Amino acid sequence: MTVSQTVELEGHIIDSGSMGHCFGAVMEMGGEFEVEEFEVGRHKHDETYCRMEVTAESHADLRAILHELNQQGATVADPRDATIEPAPGDQVVPVDFYSTTNHPTYVRVDGDWVAVEDIEMDCALIVERDGDSVADANDANEGDQNEPRVTTKVLNAVEEGDLVVTGETGIRVEPPERPRNGGGSFGFMQGGVSSERPSESLIEEIADEMRDVRENDGTVLAVCGPAIVHSGGRDALAELVREGYVDAISAGNGFAVHDLERDLYGTSLGVDTESLEHPRKGHKHHIYTISEIVRHGSIPEAVDAGAVDEGVMYECVSNDVPYVLAGSIRDDGPLPDTITDSIDAQNAIREQAQDADIVLMLATLLHSVAVGNCLPSTTKTVCVDINPATVTQLLDRGSAQAIGMVTDIGAFIPMLADELCESSRQHSA
Amino acid sequence: MTVSQTVELEGHIIDSGSMGHCFGAVMEMGGEFEVEEFEVGRHKHDETYCRMEVTAESHADLRAILHELNQQGATVADPRDATIEPAPGDQVVPVDFYSTTNHPTYVRVDGDWVAVEDIEMDCALIVERDGDSVADANDANEGDQNEPRVTTKVLNAVEEGDLVVTGETGIRVEPPERPRNGGGSFGFMQGGVSSERPSESLIEEIADEMRDVRENDGTVLAVCGPAIVHSGGRDALAELVREGYVDAISAGNGFAVHDLERDLYGTSLGVDTESLEHPRKGHKHHIYTISEIVRHGSIPEAVDAGAVDEGVMYECVSNDVPYVLAGSIRDDGPLPDTITDSIDAQNAIREQAQDADIVLMLATLLHSVAVGNCLPSTTKTVCVDINPATVTQLLDRGSAQAIGMVTDIGAFIPMLADELCESSRQHSA
Amino acid sequence: MTVSQTVELEGHIIDSGSMGHCFGAVMEMGGEFEVEEFEVGRHKHDETYCRMEVTAESHADLRAILHELNQQGATVADPRDATIEPAPGDQVVPVDFYSTTNHPTYVRVDGDWVAVEDIEMDCALIVERDGDSVADANDANEGDQNEPRVTTKVLNAVEEGDLVVTGETGIRVEPPERPRNGGGSFGFMQGGVSSERPSESLIEEIADEMRDVRENDGTVLAVCGPAIVHSGGRDALAELVREGYVDAISAGNGFAVHDLERDLYGTSLGVDTESLEHPRKGHKHHIYTISEIVRHGSIPEAVDAGAVDEGVMYECVSNDVPYVLAGSIRDDGPLPDTITDSIDAQNAIREQAQDADIVLMLATLLHSVAVGNCLPSTTKTVCVDINPATVTQLLDRGSAQAIGMVTDIGAFIPMLADELCESSRQHSA
Amino acid sequence: MTVSQTVELEGHIIDSGSMGHCFGAVMEMGGEFEVEEFEVGRHKHDETYCRMEVTAESHADLRAILHELNQQGATVADPRDATIEPAPGDQVVPVDFYSTTNHPTYVRVDGDWVAVEDIEMDCALIVERDGDSVADANDANEGDQNEPRVTTKVLNAVEEGDLVVTGETGIRVEPPERPRNGGGSFGFMQGGVSSERPSESLIEEIADEMRDVRENDGTVLAVCGPAIVHSGGRDALAELVREGYVDAISAGNGFAVHDLERDLYGTSLGVDTESLEHPRKGHKHHIYTISEIVRHGSIPEAVDAGAVDEGVMYECVSNDVPYVLAGSIRDDGPLPDTITDSIDAQNAIREQAQDADIVLMLATLLHSVAVGNCLPSTTKTVCVDINPATVTQLLDRGSAQAIGMVTDIGAFIPMLADELCESSRQHSA
Repeated sequence: MTVSQTVELEGHIIDSGSMGHCFGAVMEMGGEFEVEEFEVGRHKHDETYCRMEVTAESHADLRAILHELNQQGATVADPRDATIEPAPGDQVVPVDFYSTTNHPTYVRVDGDWVAVEDIEMDCALIVERDGDSVADANDANEGDQNEPRVTTKVLNAVEEGDLVVTGETGIRVEPPERPRNGGGSFGFMQGGVSSERPSESLIEEIADEMRDVRENDGTVLAVCGPAIVHSGGRDALAELVREGYVDAISAGNGFAVHDLERDLYGTSLGVDTESLEHPRKGHKHHIYTISEIVRHGSIPEAVDAGAVDEGVMYECVSNDVPYVLAGSIRDDGPLPDTITDSIDAQNAIREQAQDADIVLMLATLLHSVAVGNCLPSTTKTVCVDINPATVTQLLDRGSAQAIGMVTDIGAFIPMLADELCESSRQHSA
Repeated sequence: MTVSQTVELEGHIIDSGSMGHCFGAVMEMGGEFEVEEFEVGRHKHDETYCRMEVTAESHADLRAILHELNQQGATVADPRDATIEPAPGDQVVPVDFYSTTNHPTYVRVDGDWVAVEDIEMDCALIVERDGDSVADANDANEGDQNEPRVTTKVLNAVEEGDLVVTGETGIRVEPPERPRNGGGSFGFMQGGVSSERPSESLIEEIADEMRDVRENDGTVLAVCGPAIVHSGGRDALAELVREGYVDAISAGNGFAVHDLERDLYGTSLGVDTESLEHPRKGHKHHIYTISEIVRHGSIPEAVDAGAVDEGVMYECVSNDVPYVLAGSIRDDGPLPDTITDSIDAQNAIREQAQDADIVLMLATLLHSVAVGNCLPSTTKTVCVDINPATVTQLLDRGSAQAIGMVTDIGAFIPMLADELCESSRQHSA
Repeated sequence: MTVSQTVELEGHIIDSGSMGHCFGAVMEMGGEFEVEEFEVGRHKHDETYCRMEVTAESHADLRAILHELNQQGATVADPRDATIEPAPGDQVVPVDFYSTTNHPTYVRVDGDWVAVEDIEMDCALIVERDGDSVADANDANEGDQNEPRVTTKVLNAVEEGDLVVTGETGIRVEPPERPRNGGGSFGFMQGGVSSERPSESLIEEIADEMRDVRENDGTVLAVCGPAIVHSGGRDALAELVREGYVDAISAGNGFAVHDLERDLYGTSLGVDTESLEHPRKGHKHHIYTISEIVRHGSIPEAVDAGAVDEGVMYECVSNDVPYVLAGSIRDDGPLPDTITDSIDAQNAIREQAQDADIVLMLATLLHSVAVGNCLPSTTKTVCVDINPATVTQLLDRGSAQAIGMVTDIGAFIPMLADELCESSRQHSA
Repeated sequence: MTVSQTVELEGHIIDSGSMGHCFGAVMEMGGEFEVEEFEVGRHKHDETYCRMEVTAESHADLRAILHELNQQGATVADPRDATIEPAPGDQVVPVDFYSTTNHPTYVRVDGDWVAVEDIEMDCALIVERDGDSVADANDANEGDQNEPRVTTKVLNAVEEGDLVVTGETGIRVEPPERPRNGGGSFGFMQGGVSSERPSESLIEEIADEMRDVRENDGTVLAVCGPAIVHSGGRDALAELVREGYVDAISAGNGFAVHDLERDLYGTSLGVDTESLEHPRKGHKHHIYTISEIVRHGSIPEAVDAGAVDEGVMYECVSNDVPYVLAGSIRDDGPLPDTITDSIDAQNAIREQAQDADIVLMLATLLHSVAVGNCLPSTTKTVCVDINPATVTQLLDRGSAQAIGMVTDIGAFIPMLADELCESSRQHSA
């Protein structure tokens, strides 16, 4: 006995790879396909359409194949509404709930395709037929309150009774398409990175992108690791914040402490620590810096009191650039500003991520992964790290537009700041 | 103007390196030394004694040098009591507070050298003259309640009015000494690791050590990364728990979920995930596993209900082996058993660490760092990872006895279990 | 002014990615395409055909695009003979010579498509109209000696007057196609590797493949790094040679010396070297081992004299398994058997590579790269290394069928030998 | 039965670590020591003296211990002449030949301590009583030709009848001593490297050192990897050669080809290669560049003909800066200037290494290892690589003065050139 199902794909599906992946997935998973209709896009702006029947040896096999095809943008040819089941408990999802990708997604509710809001991977899809139970209902009053909405919820946000989408029916995913204009250096679905790319031209392209974002009142989110401070990129990053090229900072407790410590203790610290033979976890100045911030109450209070008067955190406070400091089990202190609960921190990071137009991942694997987990695949990302494995891992999310650079962060940020801020420097000189 | 101070060192200070480091530190920091008395240990069990006058160009320079010498075990020749100052606020330390090393430390209080309890690096030292203000005062009733005690507190545990040790006076540190018996494979102050060491003999030595610990009712703490599950080490680790060779588990949410998922979904999962071309963060089964544990209430409740019946977490529950699951901002879920607050998680890890006789760091940099931060330098550590940089970083804490192995964790744990459990297997066969 | 050219592709070009890469390349390189005919393969065994006109703004742009499309298997629709120019000197190629890929390639000579013999990347294509000038003309006497042949030559083999193919006309490349049967674990065009793949099942598949090769009198080539000896994989590799599962060895001087030294000096050596704190380049035993082989004349002579009686090199000599030891500037000695001239060594490696049905790349980046440079993309490759970057780099050659494993070579080879040799062991017991 | 031997050490043996290592080695190797006399160096310029009796359980054990102590600078208290045996054949050493360290070494011949010329690790020591058999006898005519000389020979240079030093008697090694002045950033016996050191101050120190070398007519040897060209450091390196800050270049065929190709094909090449999705080994331009140099005959001839007019190789030719290009089995071509025989290449590298006052190891592990193998431990080395493992491995040779930097070579060289050449640039402007 075999079972089959007809599916459709449409878009730039050949050069974006979806079509090939669909054929490949059917074959690898032991199924068969028969193309019923195929209309190729004859020019680069024409879309391709494919309708094919997929056959498998069992319902389970077919469902597994359809799950795979769904993620490549295939939809069943004769669409029905998505199936919906109430969550059986808080933080509990129904059997066979649909777990999201990070690609734009549409759910068929009451005969209409509804765009999922704030798409993020590995979430449940929640259907709300009456907008008023949604937290930020005010944002939605552009349309009719009675129109159904579909949002994403991470597991710990799921509440008993939430209407959770299950199965694969009535769900359409739009995987990234290869940009029609070549895309510049922002690579399409770029999985690997070369450490040998000419960095100057890449930095110019990143700078152009950041200028565009600033001109369009967009948001540049910088995810920052402590190596920025140690390797000499701190002043340039502070300048980027001051000059308005960075609109939000996401980091850990350690980054902020190192940044503040450099201010509170000056360069003498560097010399002290570098000359010792046995590196140690932290040191007295590190702890004392936290203690001083605690004494003032918080970073903004320390800035107000004049105790902190330069550096990245100082510029954030002075220029109203919001920051999220997420705690971890390796932290000293932490600072009073650090969010110690991981769920609270994730939620704060989620808001930053969903608001960002371009994300700079700067020498931190951990925080970049946390931010990346919340990003739709459509957000532009730039990842810079001295470790090629980190860059590869961070770009492996299937982002539609990403640049990876294997370089010293202490060289990268000053070059980026030179590119962006030179004119304003001359102005002020 | 020059200032000087006479300091003393005693012990196996030549071959353990302290004496050389002291001479080196004085020279590198611009000081001068004059050895006033030197009595070399003539045989391997004899200790060496050195008294020398250290001279610097300013009080600040001298203090910096003495700080360095103190960490190498030097004490001022004419000891006075440690200086003590009350903490000016909660989580606030006095200026010039003494920040601990991870070596055994003694503080001179009221003319007596008092051993610091639960030494851990980067902490403040708190003097308690009357035991009753100490949280776990009951533990201390072996001695006179009026005798002073000295404990460590991380910054966030410091309370206003705590008597905090400041400066370097009246503090004696005992850095690790080279073991007199050669030390076996547990290297002394081993900073580097070779990936080319013969692994079988090393595994035998680790097994011997673990057998010793079991026979002496000691505690083996295993710090576990998710790669254990993916690379095929899970069953062997479960066996080690069942057979009583592992007494505590420290891990993250991810390790537990992967372990439970393997049980709830079986091997088919593996096949599914492996065949896909685009790796993704988590997947439906991962989320659903968490959801199922939430539905039961907790891991122990899922075990009691029969929903989980094998694996590492199952053996922990069944054999009363305590575990700490610490949350992070990259987690899915998390499981109800996961401690999401980083300070709470650190405190739970601290208890595990201080109780351990030997710590196995198995394929996780992050949790190993968190555990390592709480360990005294005297605890034996074994670090196994496929990434040499991880092993190097973890062994860089100046542990007195450490083994580093660069190998596949999926090969290491089964070999260790073979070594330890073979006899009991034959018994049961 | 624009210029255009019509090209054709045929085969499993959608799921193998060629079609998508062609569309992508045209767009990225600033060209336009118009699909004139497109017939999709309706089932998995049907091939797809595409004819499209490619347009660019200049002849240079068009040529660059066609160069790219050519490597994806596209040919100009109205094929003419390849252009040919005599080499202007020894080791000198004509302007615009065609530089090969590692994919099966055909050249149109005198109206016929001639398959290129011994395809290898970055070579020149040499047309020979009369076979007798080819070194191994005897191999070719299956066909008419007057039929043209096309061979590859690396630059240093090019001789003045050789007829070198230039331009892109009349050249057809067949890039790897996704295997129709799913391909098992041998991944298609696999660029990345997971360290988390379940290793046992992979090892079984590799063993199956090696058994197949043995049954079909094929050739398994093992490329071996010294870590095999240090990490405990030597005995298992020797067994694989003895049992006929490895038909050729490619290695460096260091591998052979370490293997022989283990035999000449036994385990005591291991202990000596391991216990020292300062690792050094080589050591006395290493040099003395070479000296002893020199004294006997060569490895085979040392085996004949009974001086060497176990290990990988011993089994090679005893079982007539050929080996190539290539020298490098980092070698001690070298052994008399080591080929010190890099061109001679490359030529010896080339012969091994072209003869291999499956290549095992075992813990050596350098020799694996050298072998890989000579391999057609159709040869199955297995790459095992503890360093993920090495595995990624080696698999990045676009091999049609490749397996990458990030694991300890000292665990991998014994597991592979267990899988392959267990029955013969029981036999002999 | 026990056997014993009295040994002596003298120098800054406590802070340089030799004394501690000697005590440690005796204990680890199962021996006992009894210190008979110990006079500590009371000030930083005073040397320490130790005489101790070492006891072991067998002659073999004692010899192994003495071998170890010898390498730490210990000599037997009652020195006799070194034992000497003729080499039994070409490239064959006597049993128990002495294998050198890379530290300054003295051999007692006819009652006198003779300094070993051109010390290099893993060599045999050859005694020549009559200078005329030494190749470069002219260099030695400062002393009496009849005075014995001791030189090093790598195994392949040993000739039948050469008088080879055996055993440990009459050999004195001087391991590196901690510099008395603090040593600046050039770390003493630095085994580890931090990627977090402030790079600007380090670069200043390296520049100072290079200026010193230039003023004293010393030799700066740069060992160069191809990443210099790809990452944008080429022009700065060419400037350093032109301005006389680099006196010799050691590299592989690949570095030279990439440098020349950049000149012959300009920047368009970079763009072409970077935009393609499938990186390949070499490419047409790479091969054609070699072909062009072959056509001219050699790099100098191509420079003379005006075909090459900028870049590192151009500046070498134009400024009479000698270079060694060593071949490898991974090369394309190679260039006519490349030495393809590994022994010839080693010999050429050896001459460079022995002549160098400071060696810059720039983004190449392989060539740096080859050069490092020939360096005495007294030569200053600077190692820069983006991969921390490379830096660690290269610094692990026990160099007396070494700096390691983990950074992008494309950022490092321009910063170094800015530091060194800025004044000359202004001059020329």
